[in-house]
Amino acid sequence: MIILDGKTLAAKIRQELKLEVSELIKKNIVPHLGVILVGEFAPSVIYVRNKETACAEVGIKTQTLRFNEDITEQQLLEKIREWNDDKTIHGILVQMPLSKSIDEQKVLDAIKPFKDVDGLSAMNLGHLVSGKPPIFYPCTPSGIIELLIRYGITIEGKHCVVVGRGELVGKPLANMLLKKDKTGNATVTVCHSQTQNISNFTRQADILIVAIGQAKFIQKDMVKQGAIVVDVGVNRISKNGSTKLVGDVDFDEVSKIASAITPVPGGVGPMTIAMLLKNTVKAAKQQIIEAKN
Amino acid sequence: MIILDGKTLAAKIRQELKLEVSELIKKNIVPHLGVILVGEFAPSVIYVRNKETACAEVGIKTQTLRFNEDITEQQLLEKIREWNDDKTIHGILVQMPLSKSIDEQKVLDAIKPFKDVDGLSAMNLGHLVSGKPPIFYPCTPSGIIELLIRYGITIEGKHCVVVGRGELVGKPLANMLLKKDKTGNATVTVCHSQTQNISNFTRQADILIVAIGQAKFIQKDMVKQGAIVVDVGVNRISKNGSTKLVGDVDFDEVSKIASAITPVPGGVGPMTIAMLLKNTVKAAKQQIIEAKN
Repeated sequence: MIILDGKTLAAKIRQELKLEVSELIKKNIVPHLGVILVGEFAPSVIYVRNKETACAEVGIKTQTLRFNEDITEQQLLEKIREWNDDKTIHGILVQMPLSKSIDEQKVLDAIKPFKDVDGLSAMNLGHLVSGKPPIFYPCTPSGIIELLIRYGITIEGKHCVVVGRGELVGKPLANMLLKKDKTGNATVTVCHSQTQNISNFTRQADILIVAIGQAKFIQKDMVKQGAIVVDVGVNRISKNGSTKLVGDVDFDEVSKIASAITPVPGGVGPMTIAMLLKNTVKAAKQQIIEAKN
Repeated sequence: MIILDGKTLAAKIRQELKLEVSELIKKNIVPHLGVILVGEFAPSVIYVRNKETACAEVGIKTQTLRFNEDITEQQLLEKIREWNDDKTIHGILVQMPLSKSIDEQKVLDAIKPFKDVDGLSAMNLGHLVSGKPPIFYPCTPSGIIELLIRYGITIEGKHCVVVGRGELVGKPLANMLLKKDKTGNATVTVCHSQTQNISNFTRQADILIVAIGQAKFIQKDMVKQGAIVVDVGVNRISKNGSTKLVGDVDFDEVSKIASAITPVPGGVGPMTIAMLLKNTVKAAKQQIIEAKN
């Protein structure tokens, strides 16, 4: 049984990116990510701090604007438009969730596709469905695919069962696994809360990817012997006064029959951030090419 | 066994739309569809003629611009921008395929989302993946769902197996069948040319939707007893000097075990056009509301 160690792999990817950034810096270009953070939601604050730290490690400059909960949609849209036109900002990230009065997707859609390093604007998501590739793929699904590929796991021809149909992971990932190249070509099943007899589907998976947001949802009897299991869940569980992170998969039990499995934490999470860095470096490179033309 | 008679249902929908259009005409608004047709590709010429005829029947005005194969991408984009700004044009349809030198998706993406009655621009397709609904759903997938719903077939909780991962049917349909309402909530599997042991998947389908573009690809032994079968295929077969249209499903054999099945022709095809009309009427209504605001 192999542990798919996203933490170590993400560190390796950061090293690769550090070299790329140092080449850019020689040309006087410092990749620059603009981050918008609204409110004080603790996990968002932590995520943004982790992203800033990872950016700093590889040499990407970050600029984080923090707004109170009462910022209006209009004010956010104006800030995004300003950054869209600012040639010194290569990538724009809006940390979700925003406050309830704000149309989150409208805010994401305002980001110009070539600065949308989170890959969540409709223009980029739409190209997951169309025949033309997007400029950026969303970070969590691409982190999952990168993790599988770098561990030498074949996706093509496999039956990938995705548990969860969210807009951040389940749905974009399902589309990406259908791509006509070695990162895709899978047969894809998407299950969710309305699926009847969900074990019938999860047990068929060669590669089982779980993003349903319920602690230990996937039990051993729901997994085929030898399956590859990717756990996207991040559930905070309180026990004896302390908080513990657990995934959507019962790791201790499922790891006994899986051929490979991601831990939580240290699996998909660090890969998501690594893909954000990769996209930001790509954004900086592309905008240099454009400026030359 | 029920024949899912798309031809008769589409005629009924056209009658409903005719009433809606007559209400609009009383307010001096005539829904108006702009159509772009490039080249002389015979099926495209026929499709456009069928669309024009259907529009005329319900009272939608059409204006078709025909261009030679040598029209440039830039010229097409300019025409679309002109129609985007033309308040008398409510919907814009670009008949595919275009000539090989043209980036088809770039042309589709140029159509403003609220005039994109074919639902194929990245902005509308992206909202199939995001949490926010698109303004228009693509016509063939929504025709399939409308056909099922109007025949009283429950989609929720069913296992829908989609054969084919094209950008016009397979992929958008798979996303739509995951929607969180009674037109979705299905468990969805997408199979395609790279799927291993495809019968294993098709035989599990409660609802089997086939859009793979191969005549009689689905044989009786690939279908579960009592399944609902939707055939999106349109294959032209020459026999004894005459041309015959056949679907992707071996209708004569599969209809012996299916509980419901669409014929070809007369199944999905007329529903696709009905959804185009529905979208165009919706576009006209929405643009009136916008003009008032």
